[in-house]
Amino acid sequence: MNNLDRTIKTIAPLDQKAMEQARARQDTLTKPQGSLGRLEELSVQLAGIQGSPIPRIEHKAIITMAADHGVVAQGVALFPQEVTAQMVANFINGGAGINVLARHIGARVVVVDIGVATEVRSHPELVSRRVGPGTRDMSAGPAMTIEEAARAVETGIELVSAEVAKGLDIVGTGDMGIGNTTASSAICAVMTGRRAGEVTGRGTGIGEQQLAHKASVIERALAANRPDASRPLEVLARVGGFEIGGLAGVMLGAAANRVPVVIDGFISGAAALIAAGLAPQVKDYMIAAHVSAESAHCHMLSHLGLKPLLDMGMRLGEGTGAALGIFLAEAAAKILAEMATFAEAGVSDKDKEGN
Amino acid sequence: MNNLDRTIKTIAPLDQKAMEQARARQDTLTKPQGSLGRLEELSVQLAGIQGSPIPRIEHKAIITMAADHGVVAQGVALFPQEVTAQMVANFINGGAGINVLARHIGARVVVVDIGVATEVRSHPELVSRRVGPGTRDMSAGPAMTIEEAARAVETGIELVSAEVAKGLDIVGTGDMGIGNTTASSAICAVMTGRRAGEVTGRGTGIGEQQLAHKASVIERALAANRPDASRPLEVLARVGGFEIGGLAGVMLGAAANRVPVVIDGFISGAAALIAAGLAPQVKDYMIAAHVSAESAHCHMLSHLGLKPLLDMGMRLGEGTGAALGIFLAEAAAKILAEMATFAEAGVSDKDKEGN
Repeated sequence: MNNLDRTIKTIAPLDQKAMEQARARQDTLTKPQGSLGRLEELSVQLAGIQGSPIPRIEHKAIITMAADHGVVAQGVALFPQEVTAQMVANFINGGAGINVLARHIGARVVVVDIGVATEVRSHPELVSRRVGPGTRDMSAGPAMTIEEAARAVETGIELVSAEVAKGLDIVGTGDMGIGNTTASSAICAVMTGRRAGEVTGRGTGIGEQQLAHKASVIERALAANRPDASRPLEVLARVGGFEIGGLAGVMLGAAANRVPVVIDGFISGAAALIAAGLAPQVKDYMIAAHVSAESAHCHMLSHLGLKPLLDMGMRLGEGTGAALGIFLAEAAAKILAEMATFAEAGVSDKDKEGN
Repeated sequence: MNNLDRTIKTIAPLDQKAMEQARARQDTLTKPQGSLGRLEELSVQLAGIQGSPIPRIEHKAIITMAADHGVVAQGVALFPQEVTAQMVANFINGGAGINVLARHIGARVVVVDIGVATEVRSHPELVSRRVGPGTRDMSAGPAMTIEEAARAVETGIELVSAEVAKGLDIVGTGDMGIGNTTASSAICAVMTGRRAGEVTGRGTGIGEQQLAHKASVIERALAANRPDASRPLEVLARVGGFEIGGLAGVMLGAAANRVPVVIDGFISGAAALIAAGLAPQVKDYMIAAHVSAESAHCHMLSHLGLKPLLDMGMRLGEGTGAALGIFLAEAAAKILAEMATFAEAGVSDKDKEGN
């Protein structure tokens, strides 16, 4: 069995006993029952994932994967392709949005070149795991071979497993890749059964005319490739991207290791659709950090059955939304672990006569 | 002139120049313009408040004020009154929700007894500034005298000023007081012009029958006191609470000192209505952390023109929502201060030809 199949088979259901214990403990803490809302729900999910009634979040990482997209030849993006490599350098130098927010939450950033087209200077902190020099133009045929698609996903599995070996209690997903909202929209169309026009958004900020053009390019890609939602790896190969496959692998690998995975925005959402297509049970391990300003992200989340924690009008990617989500997950875990119970604090529980 | 009037006169408009500089800097940072959404808006507001193009958030405090409410004699609350004092002890011992979240964000908690009814053991970390032993029952007449109302507000001003002297870049508001959603609903009714039934919520979790009873008690209080929205201090005196007045003072004092103030949930919202009634310009200094699960909180926020950052179904109070809001404000400030510009990072800005 290959690593992908093995990983999928390893993903177990959440630990119901730990979840019940966490829920029961929440109800003994010095607050009205349910009064911390989603923080309480989140703590119960974390308990089920980690298989512990009092889940702990100490070691945090965001895995940010960068790759290029042949479809930029069709003029779908606002920024030139060399920006992907330039931003990888920016990640390594600590100057990007994700670096700032990762420092803020005390998470490490794992920067991965999984297929950038232009030259990226090697650096001890850059993980170079290139599947190819960017994908091919999906508007004319498959973006990658099925072997490359499998390699991208397995790369994600291997990388998250390596992080687990270093210590990892929660992981966030992040992306960089000029043109990758085009690929993600195509995946969204296939996996949620929507038309190209419904799932195409403004990406980094294109205008009205370019938006219509982008939708028509996606339509052409879907017509040229005829991807089938029931074969998620094929969908990835035909209209996906290396970083999207890699992030799907991170999600599967995290779940197989009982590590909660915090999903960032639109590109991570596309990866989540592929991951959930391959292994539906992975959804239980996912936490949707936020709903992106990229218009079709909400369709991805509702298809996945995920309710975002935040709605901040963000659409940067890189893992920036995931960083904020990790902070909230850590808050949830600390509430469950650190709050005093009614008995410990000598606080009267609610008057049963309803006074 | 008394301290309250002096404070109100001191509150200046936001620094437009600093806001323009912050906005201009955001557009040079290595991300598509506007792609960090509300974090960008927040950074600009912080610049205007602090009067600095690159605002800093280092010293953080949450001021949690506790007081009791005579109206609990009418059976409006689920928990017995002694819980207010018990929870103050819990705050001092570090076991409450606010302690956990304040530690998580690196903020100090200032715990204030501004009028708890039952005995609170003195402690070096407890700030005892009692206006009275809880308010009187507002369903039969004024909750407090106009002098007590002024004293509560001035206490808040003095306490936040003392924190400013220790170093304070942002402050959050928090409350504790059995019965205080009843007073806050009454204030909401008066200040937003709604009927008691529209603004009465479940508080710590009362049932259907008790909810109707609570609304009828609020109706009686409004009929007995006839508070006039154009006289906010009188509204506070007739149907408010000591902690609500104190928190209104914290908001006014923070604004007078150019310190951003993060508004927690329903009780802080009532305080914000009083503060904004006294000095409309204070609203520019407010950041709404979240919209509470307490149903009428959204009416308060829309009346104040505030858009909440979070919607997590929380309704604990204590400043727990404010703590999460402070984290987001700090994230916003760090993005503006720490991200590299396109020029610094050698990243190509968007292709002006729209390629």
